[in-house]
Amino acid sequence: VAAAIDGRAAGLGLGPGREFDLIREFFRDTPPTPHPSVLVGPGDDCAVVAGPRLALSCDLSVEGVHFRRDWLTDTEIGYRATSAALSDLAAAAAAPIGVMAALALPEGAAGSSRALMAGVTAAAARAGAVVLGGDVSRTEGPMVLDVIVVGSSGEPVVRSGAAPGDELWVTGRLGAAAAAVALLERGERPDAALRERFAAPEPRHREALWLRERGVLRALIDLSDGLAGDAGHLAAASGAAAVIEVGSLPVHPAAARVASSAAEAVRLALAGGEDYELAFAAAPGATEPLVEPFHREFRLELTRVGRFEAGTGVWLEDADGGRSAAGAGFQHFGAPS
Amino acid sequence: VAAAIDGRAAGLGLGPGREFDLIREFFRDTPPTPHPSVLVGPGDDCAVVAGPRLALSCDLSVEGVHFRRDWLTDTEIGYRATSAALSDLAAAAAAPIGVMAALALPEGAAGSSRALMAGVTAAAARAGAVVLGGDVSRTEGPMVLDVIVVGSSGEPVVRSGAAPGDELWVTGRLGAAAAAVALLERGERPDAALRERFAAPEPRHREALWLRERGVLRALIDLSDGLAGDAGHLAAASGAAAVIEVGSLPVHPAAARVASSAAEAVRLALAGGEDYELAFAAAPGATEPLVEPFHREFRLELTRVGRFEAGTGVWLEDADGGRSAAGAGFQHFGAPS
Repeated sequence: VAAAIDGRAAGLGLGPGREFDLIREFFRDTPPTPHPSVLVGPGDDCAVVAGPRLALSCDLSVEGVHFRRDWLTDTEIGYRATSAALSDLAAAAAAPIGVMAALALPEGAAGSSRALMAGVTAAAARAGAVVLGGDVSRTEGPMVLDVIVVGSSGEPVVRSGAAPGDELWVTGRLGAAAAAVALLERGERPDAALRERFAAPEPRHREALWLRERGVLRALIDLSDGLAGDAGHLAAASGAAAVIEVGSLPVHPAAARVASSAAEAVRLALAGGEDYELAFAAAPGATEPLVEPFHREFRLELTRVGRFEAGTGVWLEDADGGRSAAGAGFQHFGAPS
Repeated sequence: VAAAIDGRAAGLGLGPGREFDLIREFFRDTPPTPHPSVLVGPGDDCAVVAGPRLALSCDLSVEGVHFRRDWLTDTEIGYRATSAALSDLAAAAAAPIGVMAALALPEGAAGSSRALMAGVTAAAARAGAVVLGGDVSRTEGPMVLDVIVVGSSGEPVVRSGAAPGDELWVTGRLGAAAAAVALLERGERPDAALRERFAAPEPRHREALWLRERGVLRALIDLSDGLAGDAGHLAAASGAAAVIEVGSLPVHPAAARVASSAAEAVRLALAGGEDYELAFAAAPGATEPLVEPFHREFRLELTRVGRFEAGTGVWLEDADGGRSAAGAGFQHFGAPS
């Protein structure tokens, strides 16, 4: 370790030369893009962004934990990490403005910074956001990306607004990212459409803003951990119990195709993370009239998957009304049969 | 690598359990602290901060590159990484509001998160900032911290405002952090005061705001890379040359004490990074009247160390008017004698 510490510039800054070469490369493909809310972009000590209210989040992606470099290209790694981070803005019904990317690059991957940043920039651009800056360092370990997102927030939409009696809804279909990973882990290749669900997830901020404008969002979260886990976050923050009606889950066809059984498909939809769809609490009856216009606008399903009740925790309810705690349910659904 | 990927929750999220335990621990010592500008604090998908204008930056600290765990405690690592990040707000003359910390923790260091966050929280509190959120992951490699800082910005103060004829000034004395590192690298222990210059640098945002109020800041930067490098950033951004008058450098007494020669002491002051003092361009004569009141207010020196001229690059000028390019000068000053 000592040898890796560069004694020349205080031992700890990387000093002129190497780091700056990396930083130059880091921004070479990401010239400042004008944005009406961005007063100072990349290249200074800070970016400066106009409010009045900004939503902020950061999302770590660690090689070997969140991604594998033999599964994704560098550009896909940057794109996926940025989409995952932007999804936190969707979960707060905030409109993306900008992203910062902090990259720790292994020795052999120093040349990856441009490709990573191409992915970061593309994901940001698709969301209407610009690159605000970032940081870069070498590392003796795996590649690490931390993507910071900044969005314009109205009155904040948080996790804690669900009340007993509210309905639980989700956007899209669930389990495709988990299905892609299951194939990759078996050494099989997902087809292009399925691969994209894993490599280039689409954060749902436009959908969140649309729903917000129509006043139905009482509590909102994005599905990064899987519906059972994320419904649990809504329930815990709101002081209520979430009941998931298993029969109504919009299981993605790819999950059904890849799964070895119907139970396994449900498990992928419930526990498979990183679909980056939205889950929200809404007053009874408020969302049903929006299903059709929402689908016309976004070509995406809105599905009622359960409800909130007095109590705590997450409960899985089958078609007969039988109920199990989601933790136990996981074991049940998840156990290889 | 495959074994480290958790197939249960889409293979790539860490899923319920382990990650959430870490996150709970991560926030256990950092309950939301009220701040008039913070509308949503830690625990939701995004923090929400009121503007009207926010300055944003992120700063990576990588074990083995920016710090060594045998040199610093976990709390010091968190404190130092946060101070370094907050210094970017000082460099933009922005008032700190909040910090987010993203931590990638090696297997053996999962228990470090509370101590790291205690350091993050303490450094934030000293600057008047609160913890806004963060992220945590395990890693198979070295510890990585990315600290994101958010501050309230007036009209932005940037690097590019220096003009030929302007004076170059610095706060404080230079080279102490480099002197501490030089001792640590030799296996010696710096005394408590010197160790603190390295382990707990003090970002100069109050000083920056004070100078800004008095209208002297034409261009501003913090000294993270060493004065020669950072003056070069001011010069390049401003389209001017920076001339550093070597005889007027405020060399920290510790740098003089640790250095083997006067030239080496100057090298520590010029090229030693991470003093986190400020360097700024000011109109001729504008800063001189502020030296005394600044010292009364902050017990800190303000020193004129050079000037800007037409041209490019950074030049070192000795007492006789002899001049060398800073790059060549580094080699000269830095070569072991």
